[in-house]
Amino acid sequence: MEVTVNRHAHFNAAHRLFNPAWDDAKNSAVFGKCSNPRYHGHNYELIVSVTGPVDPETGYVVDMGWLKELITERVEEYLDHKNLNEEVDDFASLNPTVENIAVVIWKRLRPKLDLKYKLKVTLYETPRNFAEYSGT
Amino acid sequence: MEVTVNRHAHFNAAHRLFNPAWDDAKNSAVFGKCSNPRYHGHNYELIVSVTGPVDPETGYVVDMGWLKELITERVEEYLDHKNLNEEVDDFASLNPTVENIAVVIWKRLRPKLDLKYKLKVTLYETPRNFAEYSGT
Amino acid sequence: MEVTVNRHAHFNAAHRLFNPAWDDAKNSAVFGKCSNPRYHGHNYELIVSVTGPVDPETGYVVDMGWLKELITERVEEYLDHKNLNEEVDDFASLNPTVENIAVVIWKRLRPKLDLKYKLKVTLYETPRNFAEYSGT
Amino acid sequence: MEVTVNRHAHFNAAHRLFNPAWDDAKNSAVFGKCSNPRYHGHNYELIVSVTGPVDPETGYVVDMGWLKELITERVEEYLDHKNLNEEVDDFASLNPTVENIAVVIWKRLRPKLDLKYKLKVTLYETPRNFAEYSGT
Amino acid sequence: MEVTVNRHAHFNAAHRLFNPAWDDAKNSAVFGKCSNPRYHGHNYELIVSVTGPVDPETGYVVDMGWLKELITERVEEYLDHKNLNEEVDDFASLNPTVENIAVVIWKRLRPKLDLKYKLKVTLYETPRNFAEYSGT
Amino acid sequence: MEVTVNRHAHFNAAHRLFNPAWDDAKNSAVFGKCSNPRYHGHNYELIVSVTGPVDPETGYVVDMGWLKELITERVEEYLDHKNLNEEVDDFASLNPTVENIAVVIWKRLRPKLDLKYKLKVTLYETPRNFAEYSGT
Repeated sequence: MEVTVNRHAHFNAAHRLFNPAWDDAKNSAVFGKCSNPRYHGHNYELIVSVTGPVDPETGYVVDMGWLKELITERVEEYLDHKNLNEEVDDFASLNPTVENIAVVIWKRLRPKLDLKYKLKVTLYETPRNFAEYSGT
Repeated sequence: MEVTVNRHAHFNAAHRLFNPAWDDAKNSAVFGKCSNPRYHGHNYELIVSVTGPVDPETGYVVDMGWLKELITERVEEYLDHKNLNEEVDDFASLNPTVENIAVVIWKRLRPKLDLKYKLKVTLYETPRNFAEYSGT
Repeated sequence: MEVTVNRHAHFNAAHRLFNPAWDDAKNSAVFGKCSNPRYHGHNYELIVSVTGPVDPETGYVVDMGWLKELITERVEEYLDHKNLNEEVDDFASLNPTVENIAVVIWKRLRPKLDLKYKLKVTLYETPRNFAEYSGT
Repeated sequence: MEVTVNRHAHFNAAHRLFNPAWDDAKNSAVFGKCSNPRYHGHNYELIVSVTGPVDPETGYVVDMGWLKELITERVEEYLDHKNLNEEVDDFASLNPTVENIAVVIWKRLRPKLDLKYKLKVTLYETPRNFAEYSGT
Repeated sequence: MEVTVNRHAHFNAAHRLFNPAWDDAKNSAVFGKCSNPRYHGHNYELIVSVTGPVDPETGYVVDMGWLKELITERVEEYLDHKNLNEEVDDFASLNPTVENIAVVIWKRLRPKLDLKYKLKVTLYETPRNFAEYSGT
Repeated sequence: MEVTVNRHAHFNAAHRLFNPAWDDAKNSAVFGKCSNPRYHGHNYELIVSVTGPVDPETGYVVDMGWLKELITERVEEYLDHKNLNEEVDDFASLNPTVENIAVVIWKRLRPKLDLKYKLKVTLYETPRNFAEYSGT
């Protein structure tokens, strides 16, 4: 018997969409105003979903307080109030699209969870655009 | 490695629930006030979800600007501010329930997406009732 | 000491924007697709706000169960699943814009509330458009 | 061809997290303020999701009015405005975590649905914490 | 020139509606299931609104970080995960309706704010019921 | 008789909190991580509220399509996907706090509205922090 528990979190960041292998004209043609060299930014809203058995003693899949702390340490402290392109190692050569940020978050959380759990990350870049990644 | 990207959209429409094979009494008995012959209506809120590999050059599953345009052309221009029963070909003989509208939207979008992508449509008829269709 | 209590409610309806004093061309020019003669519709989300003293015995401004019933009787039964233009007396010669619907709702509730209370109506036509009326 | 229909509902309840096999010190160490012996409470927001074929005559997976009634009878009347630990049989010896409440709701609904339908329950304990259970 | 800044916060609590001057039958008749002697509970969502001049040096009405801390100290630590009737001094003889809780919160914050600021408290008992108090 | 109509809009931008009259140490001490020299960003959600008489011919306070266009021209084209500190004239020497941005938006819209209308701007910097300005 498996249950999924989900925890919301959030962070704010600046970014631009940019492929360093392309010149400015191509970046601008492909990414439009999202490639503004002086950056724009977002309120990223995050849902972390952990699926696994319910511990019969606690009634928890995982302790939500522990999960909240894990997200603070591994995601918020790494990304909150940052310039993703300039200040976050993972995006030194990786374009910080909502897809890639979701994958990076997943990879930062996965090693901290026992392998008996499945992990999914849902990341809202705006209330109208969001991405999901489950590691497969 | 597959990621899902999701895009919100919306349209407003009038409809009534109605099976033309039934008489008025049966329509009224089965569908209640939703079968009012003079129609009622909804703000339909739509989420279109596309699952596929992340393009290593763009960091995109698909360009969200392109997806937004596709939804405008294939869904909003077809359904927005319409009377679904009287003005939309797909519902000439198909009851415009939230289930059937979701399937119609999926069928209108599917041919426009490369087969390497999976497509899911989530359609809110009200904030309290919604349907999902993935083509299977 | 005055407190405001607020209660949500909702109804679905079909309507078209239409001024019977104008010909079709002018209605279409002014109201665009909102004037579609075959109607479109909305999920109207309503907030009814009552301001007044807190009863020291109950701790209530007004009983929210009573307010809920009042909204059901005076608003939902009158407007829900209706064609506003064709089936609702107030709109026989009044254009059912969100402004006018808010005023009509206010006028239907006002006589049922003691004069010591202030009344405000907030009406969402869509999540993006809404109107407020306080009777002044 | 399968579609999922989803219906929102809600109930309010008091609870505390508590394992009767543990002494007070251990309950407090594991569950913190959630184990307050005098209880705290939540607005539980529920989404019930039913997946199955669309009936060609009605255009429904299931009648949403029927589903609404079923949730009222099997969930809301059982849990609304209750103290989950003291007044609800299922939690006499089961810790009322959001995981366990979701499973209990699923088990109360499952026998009422034809086996051709899949059932999923999503339960929000707060807007920031929620659980999902699909019976597997 | 005055601007209003608003900050969200939240707490969970158990309560029952109860007037100690009345017997059980009258409490039950007036408050219904909200008077359940074993309590129920809510996720209270709070908006604290401060109106005043914008400081020309900071561009702030008040520092939102300071306001967040103030709400934590004066509201959340006092009410979160509590039984309002049994554990909160203000409700020893005051019925914990949403109206009265909003007034109590306002009174706990008001002395901490300079008199040049106006203060308003908005308190959601559920997503469908809420109260507002401005001190007048 | 006056009604208020409200229209949602949104834009994304990068910014930092910064007073050029202060040195870096003081900016950092006062504004914390919000003063990161490499910027962070937000999804700004905007509500523009116009209060005035209802035109008896149209049933409108103002045409919401016209208001939407006005917001696009005066607000979104000026602020969307911009670095507020570096690229927006109004913030060349004004700290782009949510308070100041709300005032700037109000000042850009006010001259475009007839004086018979009142104007209010509500600006969400995050779902948890927002400011309101009415011009007084």
